[in-house]
Amino acid sequence: MSSRTIHPIYNEEQNRDLGFGSVVATESRERLLNRDGSFNVARRGLSFRSSLSLYHWFLTIAWWKFLAIVTLVYFMANVAFAFGYVLCGPGALAGAGCGASGCGLAQAFFFSAETISTVGYGHILPVSVAANLLVTLESFVGLLGLALAASLLFARFSRPNARIIFSQSAIIAPYQGITAFEFRIANARSNQIIELAAQVLFSRLEKSDGKSVRRFYPLALERDKVTFFPLSWTIVHPIDETSPLSGLRHEDLRASDAEFLILLSGIDETFSQAVHTRSSYKADEIVWNAKFANVFNRRADNQPITIAIDRLHQVERLETHPNSDFVAAD
Amino acid sequence: MSSRTIHPIYNEEQNRDLGFGSVVATESRERLLNRDGSFNVARRGLSFRSSLSLYHWFLTIAWWKFLAIVTLVYFMANVAFAFGYVLCGPGALAGAGCGASGCGLAQAFFFSAETISTVGYGHILPVSVAANLLVTLESFVGLLGLALAASLLFARFSRPNARIIFSQSAIIAPYQGITAFEFRIANARSNQIIELAAQVLFSRLEKSDGKSVRRFYPLALERDKVTFFPLSWTIVHPIDETSPLSGLRHEDLRASDAEFLILLSGIDETFSQAVHTRSSYKADEIVWNAKFANVFNRRADNQPITIAIDRLHQVERLETHPNSDFVAAD
Amino acid sequence: MSSRTIHPIYNEEQNRDLGFGSVVATESRERLLNRDGSFNVARRGLSFRSSLSLYHWFLTIAWWKFLAIVTLVYFMANVAFAFGYVLCGPGALAGAGCGASGCGLAQAFFFSAETISTVGYGHILPVSVAANLLVTLESFVGLLGLALAASLLFARFSRPNARIIFSQSAIIAPYQGITAFEFRIANARSNQIIELAAQVLFSRLEKSDGKSVRRFYPLALERDKVTFFPLSWTIVHPIDETSPLSGLRHEDLRASDAEFLILLSGIDETFSQAVHTRSSYKADEIVWNAKFANVFNRRADNQPITIAIDRLHQVERLETHPNSDFVAAD
Amino acid sequence: MSSRTIHPIYNEEQNRDLGFGSVVATESRERLLNRDGSFNVARRGLSFRSSLSLYHWFLTIAWWKFLAIVTLVYFMANVAFAFGYVLCGPGALAGAGCGASGCGLAQAFFFSAETISTVGYGHILPVSVAANLLVTLESFVGLLGLALAASLLFARFSRPNARIIFSQSAIIAPYQGITAFEFRIANARSNQIIELAAQVLFSRLEKSDGKSVRRFYPLALERDKVTFFPLSWTIVHPIDETSPLSGLRHEDLRASDAEFLILLSGIDETFSQAVHTRSSYKADEIVWNAKFANVFNRRADNQPITIAIDRLHQVERLETHPNSDFVAAD
Repeated sequence: MSSRTIHPIYNEEQNRDLGFGSVVATESRERLLNRDGSFNVARRGLSFRSSLSLYHWFLTIAWWKFLAIVTLVYFMANVAFAFGYVLCGPGALAGAGCGASGCGLAQAFFFSAETISTVGYGHILPVSVAANLLVTLESFVGLLGLALAASLLFARFSRPNARIIFSQSAIIAPYQGITAFEFRIANARSNQIIELAAQVLFSRLEKSDGKSVRRFYPLALERDKVTFFPLSWTIVHPIDETSPLSGLRHEDLRASDAEFLILLSGIDETFSQAVHTRSSYKADEIVWNAKFANVFNRRADNQPITIAIDRLHQVERLETHPNSDFVAAD
Repeated sequence: MSSRTIHPIYNEEQNRDLGFGSVVATESRERLLNRDGSFNVARRGLSFRSSLSLYHWFLTIAWWKFLAIVTLVYFMANVAFAFGYVLCGPGALAGAGCGASGCGLAQAFFFSAETISTVGYGHILPVSVAANLLVTLESFVGLLGLALAASLLFARFSRPNARIIFSQSAIIAPYQGITAFEFRIANARSNQIIELAAQVLFSRLEKSDGKSVRRFYPLALERDKVTFFPLSWTIVHPIDETSPLSGLRHEDLRASDAEFLILLSGIDETFSQAVHTRSSYKADEIVWNAKFANVFNRRADNQPITIAIDRLHQVERLETHPNSDFVAAD
Repeated sequence: MSSRTIHPIYNEEQNRDLGFGSVVATESRERLLNRDGSFNVARRGLSFRSSLSLYHWFLTIAWWKFLAIVTLVYFMANVAFAFGYVLCGPGALAGAGCGASGCGLAQAFFFSAETISTVGYGHILPVSVAANLLVTLESFVGLLGLALAASLLFARFSRPNARIIFSQSAIIAPYQGITAFEFRIANARSNQIIELAAQVLFSRLEKSDGKSVRRFYPLALERDKVTFFPLSWTIVHPIDETSPLSGLRHEDLRASDAEFLILLSGIDETFSQAVHTRSSYKADEIVWNAKFANVFNRRADNQPITIAIDRLHQVERLETHPNSDFVAAD
Repeated sequence: MSSRTIHPIYNEEQNRDLGFGSVVATESRERLLNRDGSFNVARRGLSFRSSLSLYHWFLTIAWWKFLAIVTLVYFMANVAFAFGYVLCGPGALAGAGCGASGCGLAQAFFFSAETISTVGYGHILPVSVAANLLVTLESFVGLLGLALAASLLFARFSRPNARIIFSQSAIIAPYQGITAFEFRIANARSNQIIELAAQVLFSRLEKSDGKSVRRFYPLALERDKVTFFPLSWTIVHPIDETSPLSGLRHEDLRASDAEFLILLSGIDETFSQAVHTRSSYKADEIVWNAKFANVFNRRADNQPITIAIDRLHQVERLETHPNSDFVAAD
């Protein structure tokens, strides 16, 4: 039922813009993908209610914000209930915890905290019916609210979160008599990622009928999938005569606002769950005529081989190859 | 092991009715799919027990209903336990929280609430063995019940819930010398959806041997998948000579009870989980000879491009094309 | 990397035994699949520890067993802690809750229940250091234990559980001039199942070199997948000349210990989760020369069409077709 | 968009090293895969913060470690809060629970435990404002912390954990006139695994241009997938003339540091979740000229067939076949 089999005349090229659409792809002067994989676009005009995905928001805000919000909500709830107990009248609360002058707002606040968290020492006590009803409500709301906060806390804690490190620079390196576009990735978590697949797209502005149009080209990779990803993986696109990079120089990439889009997908083994990661390289993040430094620590006898991830970003410049098509640019 | 390879003579057409079956597809005068993707059919005759999917029901009822039910159950449980304590006899409960006349039903209710929520101030206390046993039961049931309620609350809160907005109208628009059937979608949540795929089926009643039969035709799309869905996507079916829409007019669609069925599937990136969405357009929800208004806010310098989702539904009528096959119908 | 491309000479037939293996497939006189989809096999010799999948067990036992076990564990834990407090010595516990004779085992039990559930009224109190330490332990263990029980309760409650009803009998029915093997299914839950796919295998004992060997044949289906499953689905295998059922009679099926294995897989839309269901029909569960009763309630005007699931199993016998290959057998 | 269709000249052989990379594959003298499926490699140089996947760590450490850590954290938190209450001054806490000399550190510790677990008997009480504020904080932190611990406990308990047992030895057995490389697996859990697929790779060091290079060869299997996995599965690679094992002897395998890598993937039916398992066999874990002992218990009448999993590892030596290419080696 796919359009390809039914209607083969529409070409596949436009499918390569990945969904950015021609307006964003062509007119944006920002990079399409940020280094962390997020987009340089924004949606406006959603009503507050329709865009409300509180759960997503609680899951993705920074930890300090999350903890601050939860603590603040807890504090404000106690303040609100404290006022509620005060409004129940002077004799609503009583007990050894209150001084000679009766239970004031401070005592009501502490009583509320003991109630909402279900500690309930009993040195301050609800006396009037109204106070007792408020206690019934507060202990119910408190348990559900704290359980919700705890569940959010755990959801943040347990969210599958592959953190794949991309080398700061991509390189144009000598490769089997020609050159290749290469970058390196490593798994920065202790969990295992398996069945990791890579797609690399080369995107640049081209003139078409006098208009500037962004085109996307998939780059053929030396290998596009690894079954295991225990250490690091150098992803290699050989620049042979069929490559869209063939004959291009650093200035060409910069002039055409070129961007290399990287899409990775794999399976987090701990949770048997799919993970998706993205990144991109712009022209100025590519080092020409270089090679990656070795990341392997040669083993002592009877020791497993290790890699030094802090060397992942290290690039070693090569002497300019005299009859290369490429010139080291910066 | 598919029937296609083993037994190629059964045609694929009937697979296109999507599972509605010929009775529903042909005899129903309702739309097959509602705008929100639900079905216009119902199952009867299930015994209460066999249809009991309480969890599904708790997950999908409205929030106010959910909260009302949970609160009511909590209240009724306390009432029941309160009667239980009263039934234990006059001396079952005692304490400073009870007046001179002993602990009545109201005190028993407040004591129950303090027990079920595990607050336990201690100003009302179980004295008799029966009351103590009831307390043991209530605190156990209370903790499990409130934990279940809290888990349901969190499950509702965290349920992956892509909300894709469909443009109120589809349009028949000029497209590269011919016309096209088009509609627009946008992601109304702040989460990212990736690998979004679309299927569009055109369905109408046709005469076959004097009988009215509903037929389903897949429509070839300009593109049927986007890798990213950061903003909006205009889904386009070009009406060329191979299209089942070729030569049809608004009256034809209406007369044949035509319906365009839309099926979307993608991956919610926050939870790495598949999402499925459906909708449909009937003949009167299609605007002929129109185009969609621009949704992009042209960027100020150094600002990302944004889209205004409130303009998603805006359709601009075009002047009737003199030699068009189509006539603007309403 | 599949064996098919590398080594095409091994035939695919043995892949059709589904993994039962030749010993079970041939020697077992039980049906291979029970009606509820479970297997007629058992594993022995696993050490208790290695087979220990407590979670799986807690998830799949009957509700009354689960609740009985949780309640019993809670009760026994309180008994154990009660003895612990008694062992701390006569002055370990004290308080208004204990009578003049001090705190006995009953009081220790009630105190334990108030502590493990964190109610903590304070009418019985730990006095000695040992009792206080035991309280610290019990409240910690109690909270974790009750949270674990509550999580299990919720996991049971929320477990995706497609319940697809299979018609009690399959039928051999007239179909487009020939006959067909047919059975019906319906969704007994209120949740939606989409992308439902069916596989049907015909299995029987055959003589091969004088030995009895069980063979498996896939049956070509009129359609093997539905996109939606809103109501019921009649799954149809037309018995044409290529069918392995061609020319067989009821006695043949019974004599060869025939069994029709049904495998369904789909997606539960509420949870976006895959569901798998199985069942089987033996020769005596097939009604020959029959058709299924209509399950649709013809609509009143402006009412959606409904199905009556209690009629799913209804089969209507047809008069024996004079020149049929088949004879109604029972 | 795969590199194969676009750029077919890069050969697929290097994709068979599974992602170990040439340095590890060639230089490591350890086995690539341990028997339990883990890797013999390590990553160094990750900063503590960037490698921090606490959740993964809590999920995979041993049970005794997990419980020890949770208990220790609970204990230390109480010690810290106890010092906090002491630091609030001599009159911060009071109550019947404290002796004539006032509330000391021990009482503060017990009070903290009653507060953090929300028991709250009320025999020790916060008096000063500072102590009350600390109580408010502790009950809040305590509930969230204990909920987090309980969630971790449940996540460990409920983690899908297929435990597939591999036979201790693989064998080289007679098979249909030739020989075959075989090993056996069984499901050691009571849950069902379906759609189980197997890949077997043969890996050895080879001389290439005078250098030692590790090569990987997929082995064609008699069957590479089972729909059900109710009992055991003997996975068979027939050693015909196209097999990379053809003509090899035990000494050859040992000399070339050969390793058989096993990759299994399937679906855990209880949770509808993908599971992945790995193992490997080295030359010395292969028994030549042997067959596996029968694991089936022949049924008594009307009893289902069972397997004895403790016989899974039993291998029966055969007399050396006089004109075999193979010699039993140890």
